[in-house]
Amino acid sequence: MDAASEVLAANRRYYEAFEAADLDAMAQIWERSARVTCTHPGWPTRRSWGQVAASFFALFQGGALPQFLITEEQVVVSGDTAWVSLDENLLGQHDGVTVAAVNIFVRDPAAGRWAMVCHLGSAVQATLS
Amino acid sequence: MDAASEVLAANRRYYEAFEAADLDAMAQIWERSARVTCTHPGWPTRRSWGQVAASFFALFQGGALPQFLITEEQVVVSGDTAWVSLDENLLGQHDGVTVAAVNIFVRDPAAGRWAMVCHLGSAVQATLS
Repeated sequence: MDAASEVLAANRRYYEAFEAADLDAMAQIWERSARVTCTHPGWPTRRSWGQVAASFFALFQGGALPQFLITEEQVVVSGDTAWVSLDENLLGQHDGVTVAAVNIFVRDPAAGRWAMVCHLGSAVQATLS
Repeated sequence: MDAASEVLAANRRYYEAFEAADLDAMAQIWERSARVTCTHPGWPTRRSWGQVAASFFALFQGGALPQFLITEEQVVVSGDTAWVSLDENLLGQHDGVTVAAVNIFVRDPAAGRWAMVCHLGSAVQATLS
């Protein structure tokens, strides 16, 4: 599997873990470090794995999680770093909402995987589309 | 100057170009390629330098541009790729609005500079702060 395919697979696992409200899977996907950042749409940025994990815990406890239809996926691999730009089209409670997002990954040679280090999502206002 | 300082300098030039509504300076800051993406708060993602430049042209024509007070700046350099997570605190027309943002840069060895390849900003809702 080439690097771009590996990154896209890691990216897909992120959305699967989100849909399944699986915090253990999230902990496998993220780099558990102080430098990670996560910004859910409308939220302030959470910094460090502890705060990021807490944000997912809060979301997963809230119930009625969205399903994601991912479109416009574009991956760029630059050495041991990669980022995926995409649109999250939300189905379910937030049906009709589109979130423009970027996910950054860093290759962890020891673990043989791409670990998520940054997620940022911004809700698209229909009037600006 | 170490890599982190170089990236922060490039990041600062982005906001200076924005405040000055200087499209020529923006063209020097961005990688002028098909893979760049730019998501202004609430906007759908613009892809490729042509579309990104057009978005800045539209914003710069609109007048009443914000001034940026940047806080929570955190830079990570990973080989020839780097990203800056930060808060844009808007002054002026949008006074009081905070935008959580990430800017990704790639080192261009030929030009001896860090070129912006991705900007994504998401307005923070005060009720979620």
